[in-house]
Amino acid sequence: MKFCSQCGSARIEHVVPMGDSRPRHVCPECATIYYQNPKIVAGCLPVYGDRVLLCRRAIEPRHGFWTLPAGFMENEETTVEAAMRETREEANANVEIEQLYTLINLPHVSQVYMMYRAKLLDLDFHPGAESLEVALFTEDTLPWNALAFPTVAQTLRFYFEDRQRQDFLFRAGDIVRVDGQPIYLERRPSP
Amino acid sequence: MKFCSQCGSARIEHVVPMGDSRPRHVCPECATIYYQNPKIVAGCLPVYGDRVLLCRRAIEPRHGFWTLPAGFMENEETTVEAAMRETREEANANVEIEQLYTLINLPHVSQVYMMYRAKLLDLDFHPGAESLEVALFTEDTLPWNALAFPTVAQTLRFYFEDRQRQDFLFRAGDIVRVDGQPIYLERRPSP
Repeated sequence: MKFCSQCGSARIEHVVPMGDSRPRHVCPECATIYYQNPKIVAGCLPVYGDRVLLCRRAIEPRHGFWTLPAGFMENEETTVEAAMRETREEANANVEIEQLYTLINLPHVSQVYMMYRAKLLDLDFHPGAESLEVALFTEDTLPWNALAFPTVAQTLRFYFEDRQRQDFLFRAGDIVRVDGQPIYLERRPSP
Repeated sequence: MKFCSQCGSARIEHVVPMGDSRPRHVCPECATIYYQNPKIVAGCLPVYGDRVLLCRRAIEPRHGFWTLPAGFMENEETTVEAAMRETREEANANVEIEQLYTLINLPHVSQVYMMYRAKLLDLDFHPGAESLEVALFTEDTLPWNALAFPTVAQTLRFYFEDRQRQDFLFRAGDIVRVDGQPIYLERRPSP
């Protein structure tokens, strides 16, 4: 942030405002304080029989890797609407939401993933503009080594674990980086 | 938004960028696109025996009304950390998190509430800068008509319902406004 978006001043400072505990971008001319907050990524785990739907990414980051359909939640929508919209946009797939299945914090990038378990209603799907391909995979055929994101891999691991006993538990946890590797923890140790 | 915070241009437009489906603030001079996304409000429902802890707000909105300790999640923290921080800041209370209890979308203000059921560990609490008082209430003594927010009222209603059978279900839903009144729905009808 180089200029105040309210008054145009170039004197933006990065300081802790009075009564606050964290540095913010502040305009000393018009006194506007700019807050930045985590973003929600909402998506689906669409299931059809013993297969799950994945999209191969046509965009960066992780171009060419496989993901569950998911993306940034927009203003004025709900988490379920965001998950369904992303599934339509990326896979043109029709789903029925079953449950919020994983809620995963990514504090190092200030994101919170919310993945919904969903029933894929038919086989009438095809790639949207952000996907190269869309396909169904069983646990054995799934491209485990070519998944785009740790949140996607973790959600899929939980799913195939829970599927064996047909009891789908809601899971909440954090993914942190240890020696550059993503590790899933039910709760990260206090920073 | 009146000026581009990257280049200082005053020519900010509100248009649908190429390949997008929603209007965004866009700078035609340096091509920066500004996205706005929903915010997470994280908080706790601290329980001590048959009583719950509430804070009377010392700030607007809803100055003087009672709330569960909660506030905007910050970058680089997790949802649990945000809930515990807000509980310390507003009530100086020590809690142990038990479960994510309610997840409530407020699409009309682009917020997602996440309230955690928590055990209040001791009676050593007192108001923080944003609270006038902090107190414990049973279901019968609770100021039901002086609660600050519909999300707080709904979370408390669920709690005292679930408490009777000692089975605390995770609930996810939406609060929408119908004739100016807030209504809780498991899922709002498609807009």
